[in-house]
Amino acid sequence: MISIASRGPLWRCDNATRLLPATVAKRTFSTSPSWRLHTKEMEEETLGRLKVDKGRLMRDIHHTCQWGTGERWGDAPTETGMSRLALSDSDKEARAWFVRTTEEFGCEVTIDSMGNIFAVRPGLNNDQPPTFVGSHLDTQPSGGRYDGILGVHAGVEMLKVLNDNWVETQYPVGVVNWTNEEGARFPKSMVSSGVWSGDIPLEDAHNLKEVHPGNATMASELKRIGYLGDTPCSHESMPMAAHFELHIEQGPLLEIANKKIGVVTGVQAYKWLTVTVKGRDTHTGTTDLKSRADALLTASKMILHSHKLATANNALASTGILYLKPGSTNTVPGEVSFSLDIRSPNDATVTRMLSLITTDFPRIAAGENISGLNDGCTSALPLTVSIREDFNSPATTFHPRCIEAVGQAAHATLGPDSKNLVMEMTSGAGHDSVYASKRCPTSMVFVPCREGVSHNPSEFCKEEDCAAGAQVLLQSVLRFDRGRGE
Amino acid sequence: MISIASRGPLWRCDNATRLLPATVAKRTFSTSPSWRLHTKEMEEETLGRLKVDKGRLMRDIHHTCQWGTGERWGDAPTETGMSRLALSDSDKEARAWFVRTTEEFGCEVTIDSMGNIFAVRPGLNNDQPPTFVGSHLDTQPSGGRYDGILGVHAGVEMLKVLNDNWVETQYPVGVVNWTNEEGARFPKSMVSSGVWSGDIPLEDAHNLKEVHPGNATMASELKRIGYLGDTPCSHESMPMAAHFELHIEQGPLLEIANKKIGVVTGVQAYKWLTVTVKGRDTHTGTTDLKSRADALLTASKMILHSHKLATANNALASTGILYLKPGSTNTVPGEVSFSLDIRSPNDATVTRMLSLITTDFPRIAAGENISGLNDGCTSALPLTVSIREDFNSPATTFHPRCIEAVGQAAHATLGPDSKNLVMEMTSGAGHDSVYASKRCPTSMVFVPCREGVSHNPSEFCKEEDCAAGAQVLLQSVLRFDRGRGE
Repeated sequence: MISIASRGPLWRCDNATRLLPATVAKRTFSTSPSWRLHTKEMEEETLGRLKVDKGRLMRDIHHTCQWGTGERWGDAPTETGMSRLALSDSDKEARAWFVRTTEEFGCEVTIDSMGNIFAVRPGLNNDQPPTFVGSHLDTQPSGGRYDGILGVHAGVEMLKVLNDNWVETQYPVGVVNWTNEEGARFPKSMVSSGVWSGDIPLEDAHNLKEVHPGNATMASELKRIGYLGDTPCSHESMPMAAHFELHIEQGPLLEIANKKIGVVTGVQAYKWLTVTVKGRDTHTGTTDLKSRADALLTASKMILHSHKLATANNALASTGILYLKPGSTNTVPGEVSFSLDIRSPNDATVTRMLSLITTDFPRIAAGENISGLNDGCTSALPLTVSIREDFNSPATTFHPRCIEAVGQAAHATLGPDSKNLVMEMTSGAGHDSVYASKRCPTSMVFVPCREGVSHNPSEFCKEEDCAAGAQVLLQSVLRFDRGRGE
Repeated sequence: MISIASRGPLWRCDNATRLLPATVAKRTFSTSPSWRLHTKEMEEETLGRLKVDKGRLMRDIHHTCQWGTGERWGDAPTETGMSRLALSDSDKEARAWFVRTTEEFGCEVTIDSMGNIFAVRPGLNNDQPPTFVGSHLDTQPSGGRYDGILGVHAGVEMLKVLNDNWVETQYPVGVVNWTNEEGARFPKSMVSSGVWSGDIPLEDAHNLKEVHPGNATMASELKRIGYLGDTPCSHESMPMAAHFELHIEQGPLLEIANKKIGVVTGVQAYKWLTVTVKGRDTHTGTTDLKSRADALLTASKMILHSHKLATANNALASTGILYLKPGSTNTVPGEVSFSLDIRSPNDATVTRMLSLITTDFPRIAAGENISGLNDGCTSALPLTVSIREDFNSPATTFHPRCIEAVGQAAHATLGPDSKNLVMEMTSGAGHDSVYASKRCPTSMVFVPCREGVSHNPSEFCKEEDCAAGAQVLLQSVLRFDRGRGE
C-alpha cells in the first residue's frame, strides 16, 4: 500500500489481462489504446449504457453484512440490522474486504493516520487529484444495512462497472471509506473527514475515548486492528477533485413525495447542546407539590417548549438522551441532564433557536409561565439550568458543478418521467460530505428508505432504489470527470 | 436466640444485678418487687421524669453510622449521608450491634425468616404480646442518617431509660428492626413487615432479586449474612399488642408550620405505575416534526399532564425513574418507560387519578390535544402507551388508642406551649407501620427534618428534635402499656 502522493503515471496497459474475468483481473491501464471508452468522448447514449449490476451490488452489500450482523427484524436471511462499531473486529473484517476488493480491481490503496482508506483507480491523467466517491462502513450499535454501507458499495460497484466496460476516465477516480462517521463508538461524528479537512486536530481525534464502559482510544484501536496508516490524514496528502456520496435519505420526504432520487444541495446547520437542570431530591410521598424543585417535571416542560419553538421557527429540536438522578420511584429527581439537537437549513434559524432556548429555559427553571406551559400547574420552588454547546455544524452549501452533475445523472437515469421522480433537497443529517465540501466540490445523491427510518435495525432501501442511486452516483462521477479541465 | 413463641414467663428478678451499670447488666425481672417503678402506678409527674438522654441517643446514632457511611455534605465528622443497603455487609454490622446491645439490656432476641429482629424486654405479665417500637436500619443508596435509623435508636434508647429507672412495664415491650424497608436494594418497600402481616407471600419476598446489576436474592443474602431466622415471619409467631414508630417527617409541613411533633393519624394511599410509550426511532436531522413518533416528547407531555391532574385533584404525582431507547443524541427515542407514583390521603382520589391517567395518556399518545398540551406543537404520528400497576397501598388509618397515646405524650413532652407545637397529620410515605397496623393498633410520631429533605445524604434532624421525638415515643409506649387491660 503506497500513498497516492508517491505514485506517478505508473499504470500501463496489459492487453493480456483483457481476457481475464473482471473479478480477478489485476489490471493496469495504458494512456489511451483505441479500444477503450474514454469519458471525454462519451455521448449521453454511451453514458446511459454503463449500468450498475443490481444483483451484484446487493449480493456485495449483504456479503459484507456478515461482519457485525445485528438484530433480526424479519424472516429473510438479510432481514437483520447491523452493529458494526468503528474499529471493532467486525469493522476490521469489512475493511479487509474493501482493501482486497479494490486492489483486485486495479486500485492503489492508501491508509492515512485516521484509518481512512482511499482506493484510487488511475485515469488518463494521473497528475491531478482523483474524483472520489465516499461514505463509511461503520454503523450505529443498532443500525441498519444501508446507512454508509450503501455509499461505499456503490463506489466499489462503480469500479466494477468501469472495469467491465474498459472505461478510462480523464483523471483518476477513487472510493474512500471514512473512519467512525457515526460517532457511535468514539463520540464525535464524521471525525476522520474532519481531521482530513483540517477542522479537527489529529491529536484530539486520536485521543477520543470510546463510550462507556470501554477505555480504548481511536489511536489504540487503529493500532490494534492495523489501520494506523503512515500517510498524514490531510486534504494536502490526499487531495480530492470532488467528493460524491450516495446515501439513504434517513427521512421520509422522498417517500412521501413519491420521488426516487434526491439531488442534495447542502446540509442543514445544527448544534448539539447539553442541558442540565438542577433542583432538589425529595421524597415523592411527603413533599407537597409546592415544596418541590422537580428537575424532571421542569425538563419535561423544556423538551415540550423546544418542540414548540421548533414548530414556530420551522426548525427541528430533538432530545435523544436523558439522564436523571438519583433514579428511584419514590424520590423526586434533583438533577436531569438531556441532549438537545437543533437544526435548520439556515444558520440564522439555528442561531435564533439557540437564543430563544438560552432566554426561555432559565425562565422556565425559575418558574415563569412561558407560553402557558404552567397553566394548571402548582407553582413550586425555583430550579437552575445550564446549557452547554457541544457541537456546531454550520449550514453547508454544496458545489454547483457537483449538484449539476448529480441532477443531470438523476434525470438521465430515471428517463422520460424523471421530472416527477427527482427533487432537490437539503440533507438533515451530517455526512462526511460536509467536511469534504470544505476542501473540494461536493454533492450527494439521496435515495428513499422505508418510512424514513434509519438508525434502526429495520432500516431498509429497496434493491431498485439502491441500484438507481448507484447508477446516478456512477454517472455523476463520469459527468464530473468529463467536464474537468473545461 | 429463641422465638418469643417458645418463651414463657421465664424472667426472674436477680437483685444483685441492680448494682451493675445499666450498660452491662444482663438483667431479668421479678414479678413485682416494691422498689420498682410500675407503669400502672405512674402519675403524669413520674412519667414526665423519665427522660431520654439526648447525648447518648445522638452518640449511638452516629456510632452505628460508621457502618455504611455515605456521601459527605458538610465538614463535621457526622455530616455525611448513609449508603447501607439491606442485607449488605454494613447492614450486617449494624444488625450485630442491635442484637448485642438489646441483649445487653436484658432483651430476648428473635430473628424470623425475613431477618426481622425482635428484641423483647419482659414486663410484669409476659403471657401477652409485647408493645413494639419499630423501624429499620437499612437506607437508600444515597440516603441520610435519620430515615429509619432514628426510629430504631429511639427504641434502643427507650430500653436504656427503662433500665436506668428500673421501670417494669405491665406487659413486655420490644424493639423491632424490619428488613429492607426502603426497597432500594430488593425492589419492594416494606417487604418484611408485609410478610409478617400476611400481605406478601414469604416465597415472593425470598425470591426478590436485588436491583441491577447484581443477582443475589433476599433469601441468598439473608443466608449469607446469617440472618435467615428459624421463627416463621408472621404476626402469629410474633404477635404485637401495638406498634409505635418514630420517624422524620421527610416532608416540609412541620417545619413550615413551625411545629415540633406530628401525631400521625394514618398513611396516604398510593399506587406505583410503570408507563411505557412506544413510538419509532428515527434520525433527528432527517425526520421532519410531522413524520415523528417521538416517545420522549410524548412522555414529557404525560409527565406534565400528570402534574396538572395532581394539582386539580389535590393529589401527588411524581416520576422518579425514566429510561429511553436507544439513547443517542441524533436519534429520536422510539421507546420511553417511566415510573409514576400517585398519592392522596384518600383512596377515592388515587382511584380517580388512575382513571384519569388511564383515559388521558392513550389520548395524548394518539395525538389528541388534552388541556392545551399540544397548543403550538406540530401534529405528528400516533404512538401507543401501556400502563402497568406495580404496587398498590390503600390509605391506612391508625388506631385511636395509639393516636391518643401519641397525642398525650406529645403534649406532655412539649409542655405549656404544646398546643402550638403539635399537629395531627397523615404520612405521605409508606412505613412498616402500614403493614403493622393491619395486625395491631398502630401510630407514628413525626419530627421535622431540615427543609423536608429526605432520601438525600444531607437529610438532617436537629438533636433536640430527635430527642423530643424519642421522648414522645417512650411516653406513648408507657401510656399504651399503662392503659392495657382497662
